Amino acid sequence: MRVLIMGGDGYLGWPTAMHLADAGHDVLVCDNYLRRTLARQLDVEPLVDPPNLVQRAAAWREQGGKPIEVAIGDLAEWGFVEDLFARATPQAIVHYAEQPSAPYSMLDRRAAALTLHNNLGVTLNLIHAVHRFCPGSHIVKLGTMGEYGTPNIDIEEGWIDVDHKGRRDRFLFPRQAGSLYHTTKIMDTDLLWFYVRVWNLCVTDLMQGPVYGVETEESARDADRLSPHLSYDEIFGTVLNRFVVQAVAGIPLTIYGSGGQTRGYLDLRDTIQCIRLVVEQPPAPGELRILNQFVETFSVRDLAQRVQTVARRLGLAAEVAHVPNPRKEKEEHYYNPASTGLLDLGLKPHRLSDDGIARMIELVRRHHERIEPSRIVRNVRWD
Amino acid sequence: MRVLIMGGDGYLGWPTAMHLADAGHDVLVCDNYLRRTLARQLDVEPLVDPPNLVQRAAAWREQGGKPIEVAIGDLAEWGFVEDLFARATPQAIVHYAEQPSAPYSMLDRRAAALTLHNNLGVTLNLIHAVHRFCPGSHIVKLGTMGEYGTPNIDIEEGWIDVDHKGRRDRFLFPRQAGSLYHTTKIMDTDLLWFYVRVWNLCVTDLMQGPVYGVETEESARDADRLSPHLSYDEIFGTVLNRFVVQAVAGIPLTIYGSGGQTRGYLDLRDTIQCIRLVVEQPPAPGELRILNQFVETFSVRDLAQRVQTVARRLGLAAEVAHVPNPRKEKEEHYYNPASTGLLDLGLKPHRLSDDGIARMIELVRRHHERIEPSRIVRNVRWD
Repeated sequence: MRVLIMGGDGYLGWPTAMHLADAGHDVLVCDNYLRRTLARQLDVEPLVDPPNLVQRAAAWREQGGKPIEVAIGDLAEWGFVEDLFARATPQAIVHYAEQPSAPYSMLDRRAAALTLHNNLGVTLNLIHAVHRFCPGSHIVKLGTMGEYGTPNIDIEEGWIDVDHKGRRDRFLFPRQAGSLYHTTKIMDTDLLWFYVRVWNLCVTDLMQGPVYGVETEESARDADRLSPHLSYDEIFGTVLNRFVVQAVAGIPLTIYGSGGQTRGYLDLRDTIQCIRLVVEQPPAPGELRILNQFVETFSVRDLAQRVQTVARRLGLAAEVAHVPNPRKEKEEHYYNPASTGLLDLGLKPHRLSDDGIARMIELVRRHHERIEPSRIVRNVRWD
Repeated sequence: MRVLIMGGDGYLGWPTAMHLADAGHDVLVCDNYLRRTLARQLDVEPLVDPPNLVQRAAAWREQGGKPIEVAIGDLAEWGFVEDLFARATPQAIVHYAEQPSAPYSMLDRRAAALTLHNNLGVTLNLIHAVHRFCPGSHIVKLGTMGEYGTPNIDIEEGWIDVDHKGRRDRFLFPRQAGSLYHTTKIMDTDLLWFYVRVWNLCVTDLMQGPVYGVETEESARDADRLSPHLSYDEIFGTVLNRFVVQAVAGIPLTIYGSGGQTRGYLDLRDTIQCIRLVVEQPPAPGELRILNQFVETFSVRDLAQRVQTVARRLGLAAEVAHVPNPRKEKEEHYYNPASTGLLDLGLKPHRLSDDGIARMIELVRRHHERIEPSRIVRNVRWD
């Protein structure tokens, strides 16, 4: 299948590209290096900072991988999108091309405006490009479990039947997010849902939880050149990756508030597996298929303890420190999200293991001289 | 009270400005004439095309009205917004400053992008300006009943309690709109709801139905110079106003499909009354107050018949024609929206009367030589 990966330079984009190429698909990746640019501006470049896309595609080919085509440009610019789609006419498009950080979106007005206009502008361009150049092709959009927030009822997969005063209808599951970034993902869902109804688009919207890990079967063939970046800072790093770096750097694992914040997590290897399963099994035209993409739920406290236990076994101090919560969020809450749809499509999940944490610690140790502790906590406050 | 009206040149903006000034408030209106520019580009200028804001403010003052200050500029540009708010520090802001047409938003990709970026960009700028320059001031945002769509359950005022698997929570009432324009209004609600929770904003979000009429107590003092514009085209005209113009022009009143599409309508005089009541009775900080702003529901068929009856009494043929529906919408559906909140605040509603329709017909007759039938139906198709 011809697959376009928008945001192919990202933490998830590049591993997805290799995984789909390995499964025999014709893969074209596109990126404008926005995340790299923002990370440089904020002095929060990653611990492991891989070569650019052209270099990575060359390294992948050297390792015998099926060629991955690269296009560099800004998907928020219609002229670029138009040329790309007219030329490529993809059968599936995986859309990762968004400013991906919640704290970044809360930095200041300019960061908020960039997040809003970039994320929605790219999604709107994608929708119009598909309608014009490849109607019927499958849009696979990365959303986030954060769209749902932490409601006091069970979280279903995208939809809910509401009984009200003796009548019933089916609606998008209620959404209320915890950051501007997450709110732009809600808006993406609004946008896709509207155009699915009007233009019979074929869309899968994946509500993904935080991802951990850097190793995949494909990146292991040349870890130095094929691994995705590993961010460990408060802006672009996800929590488990950050805890591992803190443990190696000998500074306390920082928990915001009580640490009861519970989310659904998954291994990077499961993200790329989910994308492949979804790409290979599209929904019907006119359907907005929503799947909750995570494997297991943990509280932040649980995660810190898991990392602490393994780190201590490896001779690290790995203290844990509770710090005042810079975000506005519930620190203790009900959380019971459904996630059977991807299992039904064939997902074979990897659960978080002590061995996996140990391998991450070893990887970070090999780069420990590059850790800049000042990058880890930046105190981006929600208020 | 110091009140800023964003979008003060509009069909609702200018009548609101006069009404609030008459009630003793200090009113500043702001606009960049976007609607006028778009109408000119599309050759759908209104039947009654009033003087610009500076001229109208002068005419208002000549009639003895309390001065209305005018600022011309683009509220999507932060530099302009920053200067405006730093200088004006309004206590209430009425936000009408959006591309207001559903068919316009469906014209093509450029129109969709303009609608998305303008409407959300202005709302984001407003939120950040209030947070920075006048925290605690009251944002009065014009939303639309169209955010709810036509669900199969009763429509509540903004919120709904959902019982699900033995647990309960309160959520925004489900939203699913019928155009990109209406979808941007859903996104406005998403945006406001997020920042209300994080920054304790004080917001009233008004879910308004289609408005009819041009006459208000204040505009009657100098109807030629103080009336708002009257659009009758498919892009910027609302349905009742368009039916009246069709009746006067001797062309059939065009009903899309079966005409069972039911909405909540209100008189222009009630819109401005609602805004005044809401401005003078703000909600608490940290509250997103949502009110459904309409007076009575009609199907499109009902409205056509009401206009036909009065028009025939006045000697017009007023035929009715059903045309294929260019939109994607249910033509027969359940519709039972609540609207008690504004009555509780003191609204004294004007109901649609035959006499009111007759006065509109007389007004349009005075301008009948300006009617361009080619402007009325433009066949903007949703697909």
